Order: sequence, then structure tokens, then C-alpha cells
Amino acid sequence: MLDRYCSEEMKQLWDLGQKYQYWLKVELAACRAMEAKEMVPRGTVAKIEGKVELDPQKILEIEKVTRHDVIAFLTHVENQVGEPARWLHLGLTSSDILDTSFALQLKQALEMIITEAEILADHCSHQALEHKDTIMIGRTHGIQAEPTTMGVVFAMWYAEMVRNIKRLRTALCDISFGKIAGAVGNYANLDPEVEKAALDELGLKPEPAATQVVQRDRHAFVFSTLAIMAGTVEKMAVTIRHWQRTEVHEAAEPFGKGQKGSSAMPHKRNPILCENITGLARTIRSYAAPALENIALWHERDISHSSVERIIAPDATSLTQFMLKRAGRVVSGLDIFPKNLARNLELTGGLVLSEAVLLEIVKEGVGRQKAYEAVQSCAMEATEKGGDFRELLRNNPLIKKHLGEKQLDKALNINHHVRHCNFIIRRALAEKY
Amino acid sequence: MLDRYCSEEMKQLWDLGQKYQYWLKVELAACRAMEAKEMVPRGTVAKIEGKVELDPQKILEIEKVTRHDVIAFLTHVENQVGEPARWLHLGLTSSDILDTSFALQLKQALEMIITEAEILADHCSHQALEHKDTIMIGRTHGIQAEPTTMGVVFAMWYAEMVRNIKRLRTALCDISFGKIAGAVGNYANLDPEVEKAALDELGLKPEPAATQVVQRDRHAFVFSTLAIMAGTVEKMAVTIRHWQRTEVHEAAEPFGKGQKGSSAMPHKRNPILCENITGLARTIRSYAAPALENIALWHERDISHSSVERIIAPDATSLTQFMLKRAGRVVSGLDIFPKNLARNLELTGGLVLSEAVLLEIVKEGVGRQKAYEAVQSCAMEATEKGGDFRELLRNNPLIKKHLGEKQLDKALNINHHVRHCNFIIRRALAEKY
Amino acid sequence: MLDRYCSEEMKQLWDLGQKYQYWLKVELAACRAMEAKEMVPRGTVAKIEGKVELDPQKILEIEKVTRHDVIAFLTHVENQVGEPARWLHLGLTSSDILDTSFALQLKQALEMIITEAEILADHCSHQALEHKDTIMIGRTHGIQAEPTTMGVVFAMWYAEMVRNIKRLRTALCDISFGKIAGAVGNYANLDPEVEKAALDELGLKPEPAATQVVQRDRHAFVFSTLAIMAGTVEKMAVTIRHWQRTEVHEAAEPFGKGQKGSSAMPHKRNPILCENITGLARTIRSYAAPALENIALWHERDISHSSVERIIAPDATSLTQFMLKRAGRVVSGLDIFPKNLARNLELTGGLVLSEAVLLEIVKEGVGRQKAYEAVQSCAMEATEKGGDFRELLRNNPLIKKHLGEKQLDKALNINHHVRHCNFIIRRALAEKY
Amino acid sequence: MLDRYCSEEMKQLWDLGQKYQYWLKVELAACRAMEAKEMVPRGTVAKIEGKVELDPQKILEIEKVTRHDVIAFLTHVENQVGEPARWLHLGLTSSDILDTSFALQLKQALEMIITEAEILADHCSHQALEHKDTIMIGRTHGIQAEPTTMGVVFAMWYAEMVRNIKRLRTALCDISFGKIAGAVGNYANLDPEVEKAALDELGLKPEPAATQVVQRDRHAFVFSTLAIMAGTVEKMAVTIRHWQRTEVHEAAEPFGKGQKGSSAMPHKRNPILCENITGLARTIRSYAAPALENIALWHERDISHSSVERIIAPDATSLTQFMLKRAGRVVSGLDIFPKNLARNLELTGGLVLSEAVLLEIVKEGVGRQKAYEAVQSCAMEATEKGGDFRELLRNNPLIKKHLGEKQLDKALNINHHVRHCNFIIRRALAEKY
Repeated sequence: MLDRYCSEEMKQLWDLGQKYQYWLKVELAACRAMEAKEMVPRGTVAKIEGKVELDPQKILEIEKVTRHDVIAFLTHVENQVGEPARWLHLGLTSSDILDTSFALQLKQALEMIITEAEILADHCSHQALEHKDTIMIGRTHGIQAEPTTMGVVFAMWYAEMVRNIKRLRTALCDISFGKIAGAVGNYANLDPEVEKAALDELGLKPEPAATQVVQRDRHAFVFSTLAIMAGTVEKMAVTIRHWQRTEVHEAAEPFGKGQKGSSAMPHKRNPILCENITGLARTIRSYAAPALENIALWHERDISHSSVERIIAPDATSLTQFMLKRAGRVVSGLDIFPKNLARNLELTGGLVLSEAVLLEIVKEGVGRQKAYEAVQSCAMEATEKGGDFRELLRNNPLIKKHLGEKQLDKALNINHHVRHCNFIIRRALAEKY
Repeated sequence: MLDRYCSEEMKQLWDLGQKYQYWLKVELAACRAMEAKEMVPRGTVAKIEGKVELDPQKILEIEKVTRHDVIAFLTHVENQVGEPARWLHLGLTSSDILDTSFALQLKQALEMIITEAEILADHCSHQALEHKDTIMIGRTHGIQAEPTTMGVVFAMWYAEMVRNIKRLRTALCDISFGKIAGAVGNYANLDPEVEKAALDELGLKPEPAATQVVQRDRHAFVFSTLAIMAGTVEKMAVTIRHWQRTEVHEAAEPFGKGQKGSSAMPHKRNPILCENITGLARTIRSYAAPALENIALWHERDISHSSVERIIAPDATSLTQFMLKRAGRVVSGLDIFPKNLARNLELTGGLVLSEAVLLEIVKEGVGRQKAYEAVQSCAMEATEKGGDFRELLRNNPLIKKHLGEKQLDKALNINHHVRHCNFIIRRALAEKY
Repeated sequence: MLDRYCSEEMKQLWDLGQKYQYWLKVELAACRAMEAKEMVPRGTVAKIEGKVELDPQKILEIEKVTRHDVIAFLTHVENQVGEPARWLHLGLTSSDILDTSFALQLKQALEMIITEAEILADHCSHQALEHKDTIMIGRTHGIQAEPTTMGVVFAMWYAEMVRNIKRLRTALCDISFGKIAGAVGNYANLDPEVEKAALDELGLKPEPAATQVVQRDRHAFVFSTLAIMAGTVEKMAVTIRHWQRTEVHEAAEPFGKGQKGSSAMPHKRNPILCENITGLARTIRSYAAPALENIALWHERDISHSSVERIIAPDATSLTQFMLKRAGRVVSGLDIFPKNLARNLELTGGLVLSEAVLLEIVKEGVGRQKAYEAVQSCAMEATEKGGDFRELLRNNPLIKKHLGEKQLDKALNINHHVRHCNFIIRRALAEKY
Repeated sequence: MLDRYCSEEMKQLWDLGQKYQYWLKVELAACRAMEAKEMVPRGTVAKIEGKVELDPQKILEIEKVTRHDVIAFLTHVENQVGEPARWLHLGLTSSDILDTSFALQLKQALEMIITEAEILADHCSHQALEHKDTIMIGRTHGIQAEPTTMGVVFAMWYAEMVRNIKRLRTALCDISFGKIAGAVGNYANLDPEVEKAALDELGLKPEPAATQVVQRDRHAFVFSTLAIMAGTVEKMAVTIRHWQRTEVHEAAEPFGKGQKGSSAMPHKRNPILCENITGLARTIRSYAAPALENIALWHERDISHSSVERIIAPDATSLTQFMLKRAGRVVSGLDIFPKNLARNLELTGGLVLSEAVLLEIVKEGVGRQKAYEAVQSCAMEATEKGGDFRELLRNNPLIKKHLGEKQLDKALNINHHVRHCNFIIRRALAEKY
């Protein structure tokens, strides 16, 4: 977790001290459930709760000897509250604490992420409405294709974010499972009812059939959904980078007062936020792979997943949140340049309307291939020799023969091309996260 | 798609000829919808449907000239049915056909996969019931931990398969979207109602806001869910490989009559099916990465996703189906060796019951650390000097002081350890896919 | 291996029949070496060599019973040549044949790939010289930065290809290791001298310490180097896609006569070859991951690597060769548009020369920050209000004060900017693969 | 970089303060070279060197305004040394500093890693000699195969580490390239001789043809070689985990005094170091993917690689070093249990020697298939009915007919099986890193 790419709240969530707090919370929840079942003396929790000052450094010191983090933690607690502490962790195994805490942390992280994802989705929908009539040239293969509106682009981002938020919510459900079931997950020295009560208190459900740990397909699903969403945000970023290119320059990400684009070139205004997002997407994507490898643990568990998760859980969640926040600012603060949008629309002298012309000819009974060749030849001539495409169409014998002036005018009318864009925006914005 | 790892039905699904059939189906669905809206002459579909003999080789020949697969296809159709063919593809773009067909193929592939996943899940649940009382030693870190039952293992696999099936179903919904919306997805020369009618006929829904293509987060989700499920099946395979080890030998995958384990060593019976599954999991896992990279296409689309999908879609789906089939056979046909299960349970002379002893001492009021050290010292002595662990416990001064003979006996009773296993199996099997 | 993306020679190399040929070759080499050591009767090889007609279908039939490919192969050979066949495979294990053959195949595949890589490198160097004086605007962050030459771009590609070719050659050495050392690699029923002689004949070296197999770090290295090179070729493709954009249009990949850019839009000429390369790069990249996972086999080997390699070895090598061939054609056949290069250079009205102006001012003793702000304010005004940048510079009080007319002219002279480009090209082209 | 998995020296290397130190070093090297060429006033470096107290916090403060890290750094320097600072960075671009510094850091990181890799290799070779005659059963597919020696295993690890070290050295060469060539890499406001002199001072070479940055295939190669080596170390870890299994228990990783294996089960001694290494391998492996994606930057560069590298460079290098250190301790401190090695060797009652018997029969002129079936039937009977394999062999009619007592005894002699192991160890240890 680099400070540079991490919010304060995420930093705190994954902080070592916070982790120990979660551990204590889980131990106490289990202990409270045991009290209720008279498995530990009444009043045990009361003797511990609020009486422990968790000191991460001291716990790490103890761990150097025990080489076992949970035992170090328990020793630290026992050092402070004495005798009642021996009722903690009764019949539990470390993973009961670790996995249940981890579920709480991941849950909270996902909630933060979903919040940012919703904000980004809202910015997209807002921009979709704002620019529902902002005509721009659509591009396929990087080549100008046909006119569309910016609103449609934002609406498409919105709808995709809705899908991502739904996936994240499913992942959130999938991860909201804890486990207090002992060494091999079968309550050998525990009771399923204790688990149920303790997890209820914590807002989690019991893993239906655990091993020593909560099963790792759940975590793999979390990291996979983050990776997919990162791809969506990368798509926005890449699009904006394209828009911001000098030769296109239809939009640009926000640029702060005092910001310097380049240490060498004072004229530059670079889409660095979006480039940064692109890089973060690569990184977030990469965390899915080790999470997938973590699924096939040995027998009732091996601990190989642990080092992976210590690294990727804070990194993947904090980077995703950061990326979403950043994308939210970029999308909402986007500078859009209408003059350039108009200039680019006219760049090909109407070539981008050629499909409409083609279709009019076909409708008049000309074979598709023949029509295609006629329009393509005008297009090629306009491109290569610089002729006026609309004029060339008007003078092409085949086209002249089949299309009247009005028909051609309609085909060459941009507004006609984008007549369904508002419908698309309405349809996309009707999707709800 | 290697024949070796591919079912006949998958081979057929992804066959080139089949793909062209799907294309024709989509073209005709669009044309039929246009007929209904009087955008093309009544009777056009009737003049084409059933009259075209699609010849993949001829289409490939034409493609060599056009260097465009859909145009080659249309030319081939026009060569056969003549004039009415010019009403096909009217206002459409290639991706309208390609993406809609691809959705149909992926849908069918996922349905096949879900079928196999359900079969595998059923085998797991069957084995869970069959072996609900088959006691085995549970292992963590590869080290014997505490007793459990085989039924719990199978139940755990079952519950995880249920989760995977649900994820696949979500992915199936996500991918059941087509698109007939033209070059930049905004119906410039089309009508959303035509799209709706055509997709209805095909069992698909319209992408709410498309570009030239259906958005690739949908596909990334499909390949990610396959990767996760592959991890689950790998888990089964790795477990069985461990069980089959010479020194463990508690179970073995089915071994055919006439099968040879090794060209060099006649005594060998190797878990090659499970090792094969392990390798396939690695491969299926790897397909998620390029699918994730495919999300961020340029502007209204670039075609970089296409080569990726041509390769990974048939490969990932056929390998996953194959892996599931194979795993189904292995799980249902597993040879289980009760004698070895019993032998291994007793291998440590009771060491695996040490936690229960520890807990009894703690319950008697001894501090956890002290109790832990007492039991660990007996365990270490038994392990290193080969003493009888139960005897050592009985003679340990601290333990002697706090535990009566009966208490110790209960702690050392295996049946007591596994008393909750049937509850776990019932709970897991209550999950429904 | 899709026919679409596979050369005839690669198809043949990885063909099943070819594999059996390699197996026979290895068996005979081992047998010949044993003859020389009088471990098998003189004349055995002569009785087999040239007398076997390998029939892949028949071998597959036998494998259905044996479920072991090498045993099926040996049975097939024995069915044909009878008694002498029993001297084959003496003391060998299947992997002696499989891994040694696989080394021969990978070696040949890498040689084919290196050949194409060299051709691509040559095209780059040729273009570097051809366009050593073709001035173009350099771009960073997609934003126009400073002038450079196209020759420098090609030279940079060349130098990177040289590095890739060297890596491939190292990988080729690393993979040129076979193994004829028996079931656990220790010549229990063999002799290291037999291995040495047989591998010598085949052009391979013995794995210094094998298990049952040649160690998989070697293969991981091969697939990793392919992945890196794919990234380099992707870089070329992405650059060309950028150049070909409508608004930039400085170059375009070759476009065949009769080729159709779009089924809907007759005016389009899309960089589909380069987009295809981009997608292939994603795919080739993805094969490195399972190859890395293959390294940590269990004990003296498990067979999990096998299914991975059956899939990725033909796929990764054939796709890489295909990609290189395609890139070679694209780079050598690139259409370059000098008019557009010139137009784009002038697009900012000289803004791209601002760094030189900045530096001249600094040299005159002005603090860097102050100078930066002066130039940036002119740049901003030119950009936002459309003023003439050169004029604005001339009228800026600070600049006026410190720079004479001539100094300013020199700073604004493009040729001065690119004066070192030829040196770079010479230096890069001096690198030899 | 988690403290848990990071050495002090690595932490320092990647520390922010250290990075600024490297930046200053590079700026001064460039400035010194310019002094020599009289491009900046004599004595400039002397006025700066040793006079700057770099304060990371202050630089970050400035960056909040400039949103540009190098400009913030330069401002900070200028704030301290005043006027002479304006001669710094003259004609340079940020990446000249960043990439050159990054090369210095990566170089140093790789050197640290190579040192640990050499130590690990040495431990392997030491253990190979120590255990050159320690016979153990070799296992393929997890099934006992044939006897070998532990020395061969260690020798195999050694030879593989040698290959990895060589790859790392190649990567080290590949990364020892800097760049002081300006905004688009063509020395527009610089001089190649300045670059050469400055890089010479720093121990680097000039990128033959740079863009704004050093090309990223170099970095992809570094991260790929780390990933491969991680696979090798994972192999060691997985092997040791297998050896340590309760049922095998031939070796165990070192276990500290006071260490607790499990919070629940006092008898446990878990291979947690090796499991940890396994997880780290997954993580290190995953860093190769984004490094590969970083290669194809846009035009003369985009900055998407930057966020990736800020994260993966410290993480991948520190984790690799940590993993190597840990593996070194594990391999050198391995507890080996001769009694268990002997017990396991005899576990199958001689089944593991079956190949030798098979071969003796074949040598006597029996067809391979027939011989195979004879031995397999004895093996199956011994396994399934618990008979004595050696006795069964002696009584098998076919075997009896063809093999004398002595021949059978030789085939069943373990020492004969491992006679070539010392040769293998010598050969492997002759490889030099």
C-alpha cells in the first residue's frame, strides 16, 4: 500500500492495529456466545472488553519468539487482563479468528469500493444527460466511423458500472462468511450454535462446510470482480486519453492551477490521471491470478494463501478505491471542447455518412456489392485526391441514377444519424445499481 | 481445441460451419423483424431460409480476397439466393452478426458446462452421504491435525460447486445479450424495435448501450468464473492426488482394466487423471487475463479482442467441460481404502487428539500457555523419542493433577471429535444450485 | 492452433504424426547408443529403422486401452517390426522420449521464430534508414511533444528486436537439453554414456540433474521470452494504429486490392492487422503464467505440466511466428503520408518547440521557474485563445528582454531539433543480433 | 512492501528519501558532464554537491501544487542552493532522471538478489555433497517410483539455481541502461556525449534508441526472470512440504525453540516457512504480467507504466530477496530423518525395484509386454492382497523360467540402483554460476 495511491480510511482499515482490534472483536463475540451457552463462566467478556490496550509493537515482539501471530496476540491479551483471558480462543483455531476478521475487513473494503463505484456511476449518468445532444464522431479501429453523441458514451459507461456494482455486491455476499469451527472445521471442541451466534453478532454467516479455513473460491471471486471493474475504469481512461490527443482534442481531464505538464515542455497538458488509471488497472488485474491459485489448498488447508492475501488484499482494495475516486473526479470534471468536436465531425467532408448513402442506394434496388463499390470509389477518390465527397457522390453515375437530391440530403444529415441516441441513454440510465 | 481434451458436442459448437449457421440465423432474425416493420419486402426471409447451403471452404476462399469474414459470408449467400440476399444485413454492421452469434455460442457452451458442473456437484453430494461416517484424519499444512470424516470433504466440495454453478448462471445471464444496432451502436440506419424483435426470437436481450460491439466486461466475467471453477476442481484433484500417495493411500482415482501406469515401472498406479485436471486448471486460469485486457477497447471498438476470443472461447469452454466430466468420473468412481484410513488415524498414536486434551486442562482452570506447553512437551517426546503419547499424557504431572482418567478418555475418543460432521454435511447439502 | 493464425510448417511441426516421428528418432538414437555399448544386440537399429510406418490413428486406438501414449506407441512399433522392438525403450521411461522429443520440437519452433524475428528486425532497420530524415512530431502522453524522425522510431524497434532475438537464442540454448536417464533420472537401468551419445546425435545436451523430466524452468523461460517479444511487436502495432487514426493519419498498414474495410462503411480503411497483433500479444502473454506454474512439480515429477504444454507449446509458438510474419509485412509495407506528417508538425503553430525557447532563456540567466512560466503563459494563450505562438513569444516582455531575434529563430528551427537523430539510428543499427 | 517480508536494506533502497538521493546523483552527473563540455558554468556542481539536505516531506508538499514529482524535487533543490540550481536539468526531461535512477535502484536490487541466490545455491551444493549417499525413495505422481539419493535432489536444485543466477545476470546487464536524451529521446537540447559521460560515471550505458524513456522490454525481462526463479524456489518449498508430511516425514524445515505450530494443536510442527514461500511465489509470479503489459507504451511514451512500477518494483524485488533468504535458511537447516527414509524405502516391500526385474526378463529374450504383465501381476497381488512382492516374483512361473536367483537379487539390490547418483551430483555441481 503506497501512501500515494491509498485513502486514509483504507490505510486505517488495513492497519496492523486495526487488524488486532478485529481479532479481539471476533474473540469476544465467540466468548460471548459461549457464555450464553454456559461453556465459559458468566462475566468473562465483561472482564476483558474495554480492558485491553492493544499494542501492535508488543505483539510483534512476542511473535518473534512464538513465530505465530495469533498466539502472540493472545499472549499479549493475557498479559493485560490475566486469568479471564484463558477463556478466550477456547476450542478455536487461529483461522477462526483470522478468516472471520478477514471477512470483516474485506466486507468493509468492498463497501467503501461500492460507494466510490456508485459515485462514479452517478457522474457517468450525469454526464450522459448533460451531453445527450453533444454530437461527436464515433470511431472504430481508431478510424472515424459514424456520428454519435457523447451522451451515449457516458451512458454506456454508466450501464457497465451498474453491472460492476452488481458483481461487487454478489462478491460482498460471497465474502460475508466467517468460521468458528476449530482446527479442521468440524467443531471438534466447539459447537455450531456458538459459531452461529458469534457470526450473527458480527454480521456474517457460517461457512456451510469449512476446512480449517473459509474456502478461497470466495476470495478469488472478490479479486476477479475487482479486476473486471478495473478494466471498465481503464476503458474510460483510455477513451479520455484518446479524446485528449493533440490531433483529436475533444476533451481533456481536469488540469489543476499551478500544475505543470512537463518539466521540459511548458506547453503540455497531459492526461496523466487517466494514464495512471491505466497502469493501476494492469496492477489490479494482476492480483486475480494469485487469488485463483490460492483456491486449491492442501487437505484441510495449508497456509500458502496467507502471504498472498497479506499483500494483495490491502493493495487490490486500496488501489481500486483510489482508481474509482480518481476516475470520478476525471469524469465529472472533464473539459469538453465543442469546437473541436465539430471540427472533427467535418474532417472527412462527410465520408462518415457514407453508410447511409450506401443503404439508400440498396433500398432503391441496387445490389449491395455494386452499391458498396460505388460509394467506396467516391470515398477513395475523396481521400486520396482530396475531392469533396458529397460532390463526388452527386456526380457518380450509379448514384445519380438511383437517388434523388432529397434522398441524398437526408442520408447526409447528421441529426438523422443520431436520432436514436436519446433512446439509448434513457434505456441505459433505466438500469439501476 | 485439442481433440484429446474436447467433447464431440463442444467441437461441433465451435466448428466453423456451425458458426456460419449461427450467422445466418441472426441475419434472418433481423430480416424477419424488418419484414414485420415493412422495412424490407414481405417474403424476403422465405426466399432465403432453407435455400442456402453454407460451404465453409467457399466462404474462406472469398475471404482471401475481401479479407473480411462477414462480407465473404454475405457474398457466399448472395451467390446462392441472388437478389433477395441484398435485403440481408441492411443497416447492420458485421459485429451485429458476430457478437450476437457469439452470445448464442457462449450461452450454449455455458449451458453444457453448467450441466457437467451439476453432475459433478451431484457426485459430491452422493459421496458425502455415502461417506458421512467414514472417519479420516484431517490434515493441515500436510501434517495430521484432527479427525474428521470424508463426508465433510465431499460436502465442502459440493457447497463450493453450488457457488460456482450460481456464478456461472450469473455469467450466463450477463452474456445473453446481443446487439443489432449498427456501426457505432446507435441505430443510425436501424431501429431499436427491430433489434428487440430479432433478439427476442433468439432468446437474447439488447445491450442497453452498445458501441459497435457488446461490451467486453460481460465476457471477462464469463472467463473469470470459469477460472474460479477450475480452481475448485483443481482443489478436488490435488486432494485426491494427496490421498493416493503411496504413504497415505487412503483413496485412488479409478484405474481402467488394461491401463498401464508407467512404461518403466509395472507396479505403479498413478493419479494421472487428477494431475491432468491440475494442469488444465492452470490453463483455464490463464485465459482470464487476456479476457480482462479485452475490456478497454478503443473508442467505439477496435478489433483486438477478436483474435483473443477466437482462441480462448473454444479452448476455455471445451477444457472446462472436459475437466468437469473427468472430475465427475473421478469423484464418483473413487476407490477408498478403509484399512489405510484407519491405519493413518492411528499413525501418531493419538497425537492428533491433543487439542482436546489441551482444552480439558484449560477448562480445569490452567492457563492456556501452561497447558499448551505441557501437551506440547508430551507430543515432542512421543514424536522424537517414540514414546506412547497417551501414556505420556497420563504420566505428565500437570495433566495428572488436573484431569481424571475419564476426562482424558473422553478427550481421546475419536467419535466425540467427529460428532458434528453429520450436521455439517446436512447443512452443506441443503445448499441448492 | 487455429489454421487462421498458423503457418503450414508450424502446423506440421506440431502434428501428431510428426510427434511420433520424433519419438521414433529418439528411441532409435538411444538404441544405437546402446548397440555401441553392446547393451543391445548389434543390428537392432538396422532392423527397425525405415521399417516402421507410423500410423497415428492406430496408435490412438491402442492408447484407448493402455491409457498411456508411449506404451501405445511402442506396441504399435512392436506390432510392425516384431522381436527387435523389444530392445527399444530398454531402461527408459516415457519421459525420456517425451521430453527429448519436446526439446527437438521446441528447438525447431524457436528456430522458425528467430528467423521471422530477424526478418522483422531487418525490415525495421531498412525503414530506419529509409526514413532517417522523415521528420515527424514526437508524442508523449498522446500529446505532441517535440519533433523527431520516423527513422528513430524504426531504429528503436530494431534495437529492441535485437534484444529479443538474443533472449530467444538464450532460451534456445536453455531448451536444447534432453534426458535419457530413466524413471527418476538416475540411470538406474541405464548408463550416462548412452544418454550422452544419443543426445549428441540429436543435437542436444544432457540435463545435468534431471528428475523423471527435464526441469521446467527451461520451458518457463522459453514462454516468458515469447511473451516479452510479443510485447515488443504489440508496441509496433499500437504505434501504427495511432499513426493510422483519422485525425493523425501519418501512416497506414498495407491495404490489399479488393479488401473491404467495413461491411457497413465503404470509406473505412482500418488497421486490422495491427489490431490483430495487439490481440495476439495478449494471448501469447497469457501463456507465460501456466508455464511458470509448471515449474514446481511434485517430487521426481508429476504429470500436471503435460496438458498445459500440449496446449500452450503449439499455440504460443505458432501464434508468435504468425505475429512476427504479419508484423514484418506491415512494417515493410507501411504506407507513409508525408503531407500529413508535415501538417501535424505545424498543428500547434510551433508550440512543440517551446522547450528550446525555454532553455535559451535559462541560458541567458533567467531562473528556470520564471522562464517556464513565461513560455507556458504564451503556450496557454496560443492554445486557449488561438493566438500565434511564435508571435506571442516574440512579444512576451521577459523573452524579448533576454533573447535576440536570431536566438529565437534557432530555437524554433525544427532541423536543429532533430540534428542528433541520425546518430541515434547509426548507434541503434550497430547493435547486431 | 510489508515489513514482514522485507529486509532492512531493501526497505532502504526503495525508500523515498533514497530515491531523491539517486535523483540528485543523476542530476549532478549530467551537470558535471555538461561542465566538462562547457555547456554550464565551471563550478556549478561544486556549488550544489553536498549542499543539499533533501527533505522528502517538503518535496511531497511542493508536489501537491505542481502535481509533478521531478519539478517538485527541482524546486526543493533550488530553494536550498539558489541560482546554481538553474543549471540542473538543463535540456533534460523528467524521465532522464527517473529512468536512470530506476536503473540504479533495480541494479542494486538485482545485485542483492543475486547474492542471496548464490547463497541458496551454495546451500544446495553443500547439501548435495552432505547427502550424496543418503538413499531415499524417488516419487513420481506422488507414488513411490525407484530409489535415488537426496544428494541428487539438492544437486538438481543447485543446477537450476545456477541457471536462474545466469538469467538474473543477463537481466542485470539488460537493465543497466540509463537515458539522458531529452523529451523524445533525441537530444534536441542535449548532446549524446553528455549522456555518455554522465552514465559512465553512474555505471550505466545509454539506451541505443530511447523514446522519452528507457524501453520497457528490459524491465519485463527483469520481472520475468524473478518470476521464473520464484518458481524454482517454490519447487524446493513444495518438495520439503511433501517430505515433511506426517506419513512421509523424511525431512522437516527448521523449527525454532519456543515456536508454536498451532494455536489449537500442540503436537504440530508445520512447514510454514515453505508454505509461505509457496505463497510468495504466486505473488512474485503475478508481477510479470503487468510488466509485460507495460512494454507497449503509446508513441514516444505514456506514463501508464509508472504506477505499475512504483508498486511492483519494490514488491517483487523485496519479496524475491526475502524468499531466497528464507529458502537458504530452510535448505541449510533442514532436519533429515534417516530412519524414516529407510522405512519408506521398504514400504512397498520391494515394489519400487520392479523395473529392474522387468528389464532383466526382457534381456533374457522375453517380449516387453509379456514381461510387463508378469511383473505387474505380482505387483498388483502384493498391493491388493498384501503378499510379499519379492516372494511373488520368485514364484512367478515366467520369471522363474527366465531369471536365476542371482539375477533377481541384483535387480532387487538398491545400491545397484543408485550407482550413478554420485556421477550426477558431480556433473551438476560442475555447473558454475
